[in-house]
Amino acid sequence: MAGSKFAYVRNFELPDPLLPETFMVLRIDGHAFHRLSEEHNFVKPNDERALQLMDHAARDVMNEFKDIILAFGESDEYSFLFRRSASLYNRREAKILTTITSLFTSSYVFNWSKYLSDTPLKYCPSFDGRIVLYPTATVVRDYLSWRQADTHINNLYNTVFWALVLKGGQTTTEAHATLRGTVSSQKHEMLYSRFGINYNELPARFRKGSVLVREEVSDTTETRSGPETDKSTASDPGEPVPTSGKKAQKKKPRVRTTVELYHCDIIGDEFWDCRQNLLADS
Amino acid sequence: MAGSKFAYVRNFELPDPLLPETFMVLRIDGHAFHRLSEEHNFVKPNDERALQLMDHAARDVMNEFKDIILAFGESDEYSFLFRRSASLYNRREAKILTTITSLFTSSYVFNWSKYLSDTPLKYCPSFDGRIVLYPTATVVRDYLSWRQADTHINNLYNTVFWALVLKGGQTTTEAHATLRGTVSSQKHEMLYSRFGINYNELPARFRKGSVLVREEVSDTTETRSGPETDKSTASDPGEPVPTSGKKAQKKKPRVRTTVELYHCDIIGDEFWDCRQNLLADS
Amino acid sequence: MAGSKFAYVRNFELPDPLLPETFMVLRIDGHAFHRLSEEHNFVKPNDERALQLMDHAARDVMNEFKDIILAFGESDEYSFLFRRSASLYNRREAKILTTITSLFTSSYVFNWSKYLSDTPLKYCPSFDGRIVLYPTATVVRDYLSWRQADTHINNLYNTVFWALVLKGGQTTTEAHATLRGTVSSQKHEMLYSRFGINYNELPARFRKGSVLVREEVSDTTETRSGPETDKSTASDPGEPVPTSGKKAQKKKPRVRTTVELYHCDIIGDEFWDCRQNLLADS
Amino acid sequence: MAGSKFAYVRNFELPDPLLPETFMVLRIDGHAFHRLSEEHNFVKPNDERALQLMDHAARDVMNEFKDIILAFGESDEYSFLFRRSASLYNRREAKILTTITSLFTSSYVFNWSKYLSDTPLKYCPSFDGRIVLYPTATVVRDYLSWRQADTHINNLYNTVFWALVLKGGQTTTEAHATLRGTVSSQKHEMLYSRFGINYNELPARFRKGSVLVREEVSDTTETRSGPETDKSTASDPGEPVPTSGKKAQKKKPRVRTTVELYHCDIIGDEFWDCRQNLLADS
Repeated sequence: MAGSKFAYVRNFELPDPLLPETFMVLRIDGHAFHRLSEEHNFVKPNDERALQLMDHAARDVMNEFKDIILAFGESDEYSFLFRRSASLYNRREAKILTTITSLFTSSYVFNWSKYLSDTPLKYCPSFDGRIVLYPTATVVRDYLSWRQADTHINNLYNTVFWALVLKGGQTTTEAHATLRGTVSSQKHEMLYSRFGINYNELPARFRKGSVLVREEVSDTTETRSGPETDKSTASDPGEPVPTSGKKAQKKKPRVRTTVELYHCDIIGDEFWDCRQNLLADS
Repeated sequence: MAGSKFAYVRNFELPDPLLPETFMVLRIDGHAFHRLSEEHNFVKPNDERALQLMDHAARDVMNEFKDIILAFGESDEYSFLFRRSASLYNRREAKILTTITSLFTSSYVFNWSKYLSDTPLKYCPSFDGRIVLYPTATVVRDYLSWRQADTHINNLYNTVFWALVLKGGQTTTEAHATLRGTVSSQKHEMLYSRFGINYNELPARFRKGSVLVREEVSDTTETRSGPETDKSTASDPGEPVPTSGKKAQKKKPRVRTTVELYHCDIIGDEFWDCRQNLLADS
Repeated sequence: MAGSKFAYVRNFELPDPLLPETFMVLRIDGHAFHRLSEEHNFVKPNDERALQLMDHAARDVMNEFKDIILAFGESDEYSFLFRRSASLYNRREAKILTTITSLFTSSYVFNWSKYLSDTPLKYCPSFDGRIVLYPTATVVRDYLSWRQADTHINNLYNTVFWALVLKGGQTTTEAHATLRGTVSSQKHEMLYSRFGINYNELPARFRKGSVLVREEVSDTTETRSGPETDKSTASDPGEPVPTSGKKAQKKKPRVRTTVELYHCDIIGDEFWDCRQNLLADS
Repeated sequence: MAGSKFAYVRNFELPDPLLPETFMVLRIDGHAFHRLSEEHNFVKPNDERALQLMDHAARDVMNEFKDIILAFGESDEYSFLFRRSASLYNRREAKILTTITSLFTSSYVFNWSKYLSDTPLKYCPSFDGRIVLYPTATVVRDYLSWRQADTHINNLYNTVFWALVLKGGQTTTEAHATLRGTVSSQKHEMLYSRFGINYNELPARFRKGSVLVREEVSDTTETRSGPETDKSTASDPGEPVPTSGKKAQKKKPRVRTTVELYHCDIIGDEFWDCRQNLLADS
């Protein structure tokens, strides 16, 4: 065959399996989203539509890849946690990494107009991704706490910063100077005393980020009364549309699962105490 | 700071630099494109619009990443060849791999309607990607020859196969049976005698795939008289639109480059003899 | 400086850190020890002197590398288990792997004459090594069980095999044929009925392999009454000689440790129940 | 079988093939050789016996592994260059790395008494090793130039340093102070004017390091008149003794090779011009 004398080049494709029985986290980050948000006039400090679009893309990923048990999103990033025993694509790193980053990107572009209907997409947004392995449930929880603490820190800063700029009339340089060296309590106070904003009453989505978690559904009743009240699943447009429609829950017909969206604390124990099986797999 | 007690989890993010001074090929493949092509009624055996869309996405990637010197596409796959000394993202594998796979995907979805205007995209297409390292120019050429030989083999088969089905009235099962064991010359003959098709007169895009190559442009005249006559650059819709408009040729103002599209042979020496600098970098 | 124009070649030395907080097992195997044992007339089926030499080399490694908490040896192989949080050489794989394989080899050659005093070493013995990561204590125990089950299977086979050859007058081909398809109980019976050997009364070193474990020593009394009675530490020649004499217990003066040798079961729970801290580190 | 329920742990042993058709360099370094040289009273600044022992161990490695085409040694380190197409152990990194580091160590200990007969080895010396890949012949030559330039720089410094201490009566602190900031020509001058030493007349082994190269031998005559005159092969004790005696030149009976030792310049072109085939393999 004509191709066979060249086929030896396949020998340069080296195997890249990930260590078995280890938690994988795949984190996706927006590429140059500072510019993207400016060019498309995202609302400051948070654009709810853009965050909902991120949640939508993440949900599409979770609908397609059942080994993902939880995802956490904030700003232009999303982390996907795979169960310890995940064996998709024989745990080949590049295959998992690119397929999911690509699907997330595709969904982001595909669904853009559903959320930012009056702002046509001007150019191609893109994301990078990486996979990190964590050997224990403890480190996994610390990873997620790290991301949610980051959400809090950034959002508090940005909320005061943009209040100073948009409502306080400061330049961005002045606003940075005003905030330099301030601690958390001072930022809360500044928001309240100067702008009448109670930070803790701002939308949980902005303060806590988005938590997508795969939950089991009992057969008789599909509704689930979770501990969180700010569940906003139902309000997201376009959500019931499956990514591709194929292979819904083929393998284990008895336990149906659904992907629920919360904007709740995942640093403390309560979230995890209610879901003891989530990280138990080993 | 609240985040600092968790920040140790960054220690689990291990470095992944690619060997310096080695040619990289990043190959992108469509995920489940058999189904995608059926659901969107792609023309058999080749849908020129879908191929042009692939070329467009590849061109967007090359416009953004100047270290890519050549790309080769066929069907639902595209290979990007980086110059030996490429140092983008400090040669971090996951960063390069995901950023480019994501941009390609983004462009594919973003530009879909320009090429398949009467076929709305029904769901999110996705791609996987991998990076393979090749230490010598010889192996790089063999890699590209392997892909182009593959193009030829597949296209010849598919052309006869779909002629048998669409024009000869065979079922797909019968068509496969008819072709079983035939060699190349028999397929040529079958095409000609039964369907009046001279394989060599079919569009070069189908027979040879797409070759995108970065070429230098002299300052006085921008036109370039290449050895290939089936250059279809100008006829691709949407092409002059840059991906993002930023940083065009900042570093080396004296040598402007352009990305040209050919559908020519790259197995023989002629293409390479005309471009001696392409793989010379070392 | 003369060297500086060439120093860029260091860029090709890529980092190779091992995943943090994951158990490492470094397994060393004799290279071509079948020939070594023949050329040096090792006693069949087990040469106690050669096994003691292996134990000595392993002990030298454990005296030098305090992050190793346990080692298991059989025949011409030894596995070293590092505590989960081991940070030696910043967990650089090649550095850890080669330094320890080299030290083991060095000790094996250096101490040969102490154990096989009437059999001069004829040529250079060598070993290969590999590091495998295990994310949980469960998998670590299964690894060690795998090796000890292997010890049992091989030793039972070899014991009957060499009895058939050396005492039963069979050729090696005949002995293999005699044993083909026999299960464990048949081999026990064959040993007992034909050669009067009660397998379970053979030395524990042959049946169970060697377990070197780092144990804490209380300050007032150095003796330790372990659950095992076949502790053979004291009888090994050359043992009190430290590998290099340097840095004995510098860092944590309050808890002295010692490396004890057992030939006991490590598949069941008893060994581990008595040493709950051994794998607890996380 | 008893072992089978545990055998899944083998899944954690991940593949580690090295990129094909790429030059490998395996560099071995003495572990804590500063202390080793002090404890065994090595002659300062160079102990010829210790260097001959290093050469002997390196030769044993080359006699065993025919894919090594050249080795370069200085002080307590040795670099082994494999031909580009080397396929030993299917290019598995850990296997190659440990087997060779182990054999080198073994030979060093085994042959110690042949070279340092009046200085018994007090404890176990050890080495670490690493493998670095180089994609082109140019980078390989630069790597070797880097090591030989290093030899020159270190040896010139050490030669003056020890002259100041041993002959000039300075303390080591004073000698370092004397040399601080001096350039090469000043060190030459200092050696000559204060101690009557012409640096360029010192033994080539000290100034150039050791080059072991595999050379083809014609059938009729075994002698080879190389460009170097300080070939010291014949004078090394113990040298004709093969490491293990097995498989001498089995595969290609027509071209016999021998390993020759030189202490010559390998930075310039002459050495390579005389051996055009050495790096040509591809």
